[in-house]
This record gives sequence, C-alpha cells and structure tokens, in this order.
Amino acid sequence: EVAAGDAGAAPLAPGSAMRISTGALLPPGADAILRVESATVAGGAVVPSEPLVPGRYVRFRGEDVHAGDELAPAGAALTVGRVASLASAGVGTVRVHRRPRVHVLINGDELQLPGTPPRDGAVYESNGLVLRQLVARCGGTVLDGGIVGDDAEAVRAAVAEGLAGDVLIVSGGMSVGPHDHVKPAFEDCGVEQLLWRVRIKPGKPFWFGVRERTLVFGLPGNPLSSLVGFLLFVAPALRRLQGEAGARARIVPGRAAVPLAASDERTTLLTSHLEWGADGVLLATPTARQGSHMTGALGQSDGFAIVPHERCEIAAGEPVALLLAPDAEEAL
Amino acid sequence: EVAAGDAGAAPLAPGSAMRISTGALLPPGADAILRVESATVAGGAVVPSEPLVPGRYVRFRGEDVHAGDELAPAGAALTVGRVASLASAGVGTVRVHRRPRVHVLINGDELQLPGTPPRDGAVYESNGLVLRQLVARCGGTVLDGGIVGDDAEAVRAAVAEGLAGDVLIVSGGMSVGPHDHVKPAFEDCGVEQLLWRVRIKPGKPFWFGVRERTLVFGLPGNPLSSLVGFLLFVAPALRRLQGEAGARARIVPGRAAVPLAASDERTTLLTSHLEWGADGVLLATPTARQGSHMTGALGQSDGFAIVPHERCEIAAGEPVALLLAPDAEEAL
Repeated sequence: EVAAGDAGAAPLAPGSAMRISTGALLPPGADAILRVESATVAGGAVVPSEPLVPGRYVRFRGEDVHAGDELAPAGAALTVGRVASLASAGVGTVRVHRRPRVHVLINGDELQLPGTPPRDGAVYESNGLVLRQLVARCGGTVLDGGIVGDDAEAVRAAVAEGLAGDVLIVSGGMSVGPHDHVKPAFEDCGVEQLLWRVRIKPGKPFWFGVRERTLVFGLPGNPLSSLVGFLLFVAPALRRLQGEAGARARIVPGRAAVPLAASDERTTLLTSHLEWGADGVLLATPTARQGSHMTGALGQSDGFAIVPHERCEIAAGEPVALLLAPDAEEAL
Repeated sequence: EVAAGDAGAAPLAPGSAMRISTGALLPPGADAILRVESATVAGGAVVPSEPLVPGRYVRFRGEDVHAGDELAPAGAALTVGRVASLASAGVGTVRVHRRPRVHVLINGDELQLPGTPPRDGAVYESNGLVLRQLVARCGGTVLDGGIVGDDAEAVRAAVAEGLAGDVLIVSGGMSVGPHDHVKPAFEDCGVEQLLWRVRIKPGKPFWFGVRERTLVFGLPGNPLSSLVGFLLFVAPALRRLQGEAGARARIVPGRAAVPLAASDERTTLLTSHLEWGADGVLLATPTARQGSHMTGALGQSDGFAIVPHERCEIAAGEPVALLLAPDAEEAL
C-alpha cells in the first residue's frame, strides 16, 4: 500500500505515489510503476493488486539506439522499417539518390490500343501499360513516349528524345527485319551496344547499351519477353541507379510441383502458379500454355520457374529457382 | 529452295515465298515461315539453311485466350499480370472499386517531430510517417490529420473530422489513463466499439469499431505495436474495401534459426531477420532487442516470427509462421 501523491516539483518521498500518464517522464525519486489497471484508491491511499517491482514498466534512456549505431547504411533501400527507425531516433533528413527519369517507348505498326475493335493481323498493345507500372514501382519517374510506328525517321526522333533521361526503355523492333528500325536508331543516336541477345526463353532479343550516362534497354515486343526482360535486367538497374548497391532480380528458391521441361538450349522461364508447400517451400506449377505471347495465364501466375539451359528437365520435387512476379506477395 | 515473291493481293503460289515482317499476318496460301536469319537470296531464289516446317513460327488465331475465359475474376487484385492479360486481350476498361479515403491521426502531447533537438520525456513521432506510407501502398488515399495533443476537445474534433472518410486510423491514446482521450472521443462521436485489446505482443491495446460505413482503427502509440497492428488488421481491411475478397495478412511459413521464446501469455511477434535456407525455407533470426518501442533493429529486419500464445518456446529448426515486413521482397 502506497500513498497517492500529486504532481509537483519536489522529489517523490519514499512510500508515496504520483499519478502519471503512460509514456510520461518518471518524477524524481520514483523507481517503480503501478499500472492504473492494478490500482484502487481507497481513503486517499493506493491499493495495488500486483507487486511493485523497481524498473518494471520503466523504459530507460538509451536502451534501444546508441550514438554511432547504423540505422540505415548507405547503399540500402529506405524501407518502411528504416524510415521508422530513423524517425524514431530523431533523424529528420536523410540524403537519398534522386529518382531516375525513365522514358518508355513502344514501337510497332501492328499495335492497336485495348478497347478498340480487333483488326486483322494487329496485336493489342499491353507492354506500355505494364512497363510504366513496373518503372513506377521500382521508384522511377515515368516519361511516356507513347507508341511510334515502323518508320525509320519517327523511330530515330523518338529515340533521340528518350535519350534525354537517365534510362530509355524501348519495347519492340529488336529483331532483324527491314521494319525493325530501333537498333539502327540507337546506332544513329550514338548509343553503344553492350549486348544483344541473351540465352533465355522468353526474352532472347534483349538489347542493352549506353550513351554517356543514359542506360538504354531494348525489350522484345512479345509481352512475356518484355516482362521477363524487365524483371531480370531493368528492375535491378533502376534500383542500383537509386543507390541500392546489392539490388538484384527477385529470384528465390522453390521446388517443382510437376516435371518442368525446357524446350530448347536456352534457360527457360515457365509462367507458373506458386503456392507454399506444407514444409514451407514454394511450389511451382507451370500454367498450361507457355510462350512469349501467351498472356492468358498471367492472371493466375505468381512468377516464373527457371529451368537452366544446361538442364533438359527438372523432376517433380526437385529444387528450382523462381523469378517472382511484381506483386507475388499479394498472393503468397 | 523456294522462289522469292513480292507482297501482293494474289494468294501465294505453291513453292513461292514472300518477305513479311515478324508479327505480320501470313499471306493467303502461305503455310510455313523461313526466318530471315536462315535465308540467303541467290539469283532471285531463296536458299533456306533450316528445313521449312508447316506451322512452325506461326501463331494461330485464338491459341491463347478464348471467348469466355476468365482473365481477372471479381474479388482478385488487379496485379501487373492481370493488367497485361486484360490489355493483351483487348480489354480497355475494367470496373474496379474506388480507393478508400483513409484519415490518419496521431495523438500525444509527448510527441516531437524528427529533426528537432530532443526534449526530456518526449518521443520522436514516427508512426504518422509509417502509417501514411503503408496506407498508400495498400491503395488507400491518405488524408493526413496531423498530430493532436492530449486535449479532450481537440481530440474529439479531430476524430469527428476523421470520420468523414472510409477509414479512420488513430495512433496513440489507446490506454486507460486520464490523458487518453481517444476512446472517449470515439464514444462521443458515435463510434461503436467492436473490440479492444488482442492477445498479441506487441500490439495488445488494438481497438476496432465502426460508425455507419466508416471503419475505425485505434493503434497503440508504440511504433512496433502500431506497425504490427497495421500489418495484421488494417492492411487486409484496406484491401478488402477495394474488393479483394480473400485479402489477409501476409503470413508465410518459415523455420526458427535459433530458439524463439515468448515472454508472456500473449502471441508474441519477434522482430526478425529473414533469409532463405539452403533447402528453400525462410529462416527467422530475431534481432537482439525486442520490445514495442524498440525501433533500432527495424532496419535489419524483414518481418516478425510469430510465437503462438499457447507455446512458450519454439526450438531451433521448428516451423514458425512469419509476418512479412511491407518491403520484405526487397531483401529476400
């Protein structure tokens, strides 16, 4: 039983109590807390219903973060957790890299906008919509270059304009036909080709080059090829441009739920439904139809199972690497 | 060897060839494709370097999506994959739920803004920053109610204003002391309490109620309690308000890397570093310091290991459920 006191400047006398708010500073002389839920006031005295323990329910100065602690190292993403950690430590300003300005340009005479009646031989344009969303999610500022047709001069002008940003992404026109004007336009504009074609399926015609400090990505026009190329190569680049030193594609371990077959000598990414197995491993089941133009199953997929080029088949139950879809976490 | 032809209206004669672009419609009469990489033109004739196979490299009408196929079922999130799938099928307009308008209100006299010199007994305000980011990531429109002090009338007025949206989140003031004005303000404003206090640590003083169609969440003021309460209860609610019928907290299976101890009779969420084990299971290692106010380790954590209230300890190597941090996918 301790006496109830009132707030005042004098130190609390031994055996006395004072009402304070949750989170308030302990008054001088106080060394124990009695929660109001455990206190009854009777005749001017406080009757505790649990023992008073010095230090219990008390938070001490400096028990969490200390001078010199590193809360958010340079080269790490400013996650929600790091923002909470920095703000709680009183850090009001953090130096960050600026967002990259990313031009997205779509090429092709065969493209028509969704919502219009289908034309013979035309293909609905979806890559622009997808790439602009993906760039924004990676922290980039999207500059929409729209659709440019298969006209050499128009493509050259659009590429020249797109080179004003930090990154230019062109979707389509990466093949070698007479209507593929993108690579000649890159050359005309002084973009140095660093690589063209990678041993993956879908996504083989992937192109990468630079002009001064501008990174230039050529993505194949097939929707799956474009998506895979972005997730594997463009997304980590955008994150690294923002200072995230270790950024890489979101490839995680999993296991094949059924046999996985590669169709040729390329590393094959199979559009897959993912679910957690009973033992805590992600299980991949490819969707029925596979192909660089097969978008019908994308809505039921959460990522891609990766069959390496040196393997013909991965048996059911074998480990397999998984490239996660951009919003796989909504489903998993 | 086939003859090279020119584009024209007449059907292609047997044994003749015509140059077309990648992705173009097959001319009438054509049934095989020779890739330009595999063709040499010599003396007006085309010499193929690979066999011509009818149907090879040809995409057929309707081989991916068919009339009546469901690309994005009602009640499912409009993921990037579903957007790609719908746009590729020519769907230009989709009916979606509107974004919920979410008021975020922070309460407490003890709060001071980051970037200002520390005051005795004060706590740096971080919850507003964190909650506003989290609401935006869940698709909500943030209405920032700022910070309101421990004044009954000011809290009542701020709560009344916050009830104009679809959701009101109040952080702080959920205890039972004389300076806790939030619950009385809810009552004054006609908010019906549906629950108060949940058996979790951190996050016990979580409060939930409704007024007409407005959902009202009271989150404890401790940063970890606020974060956990949001991830477990508020995030799924915001996603369901947008029509995602099966939205739930992002809890995934994992395994304890070290023994995990719960400290009392509540289900305990331990701030943890997560990494993929060699067998493809997520391994959880709690950070050194745990506590509802311990934000120092949030920057190194990717989520929370959940020790259920009926267990005192989970041994190293045992399965454990994991609540993923909002940007766990950046690290995993």
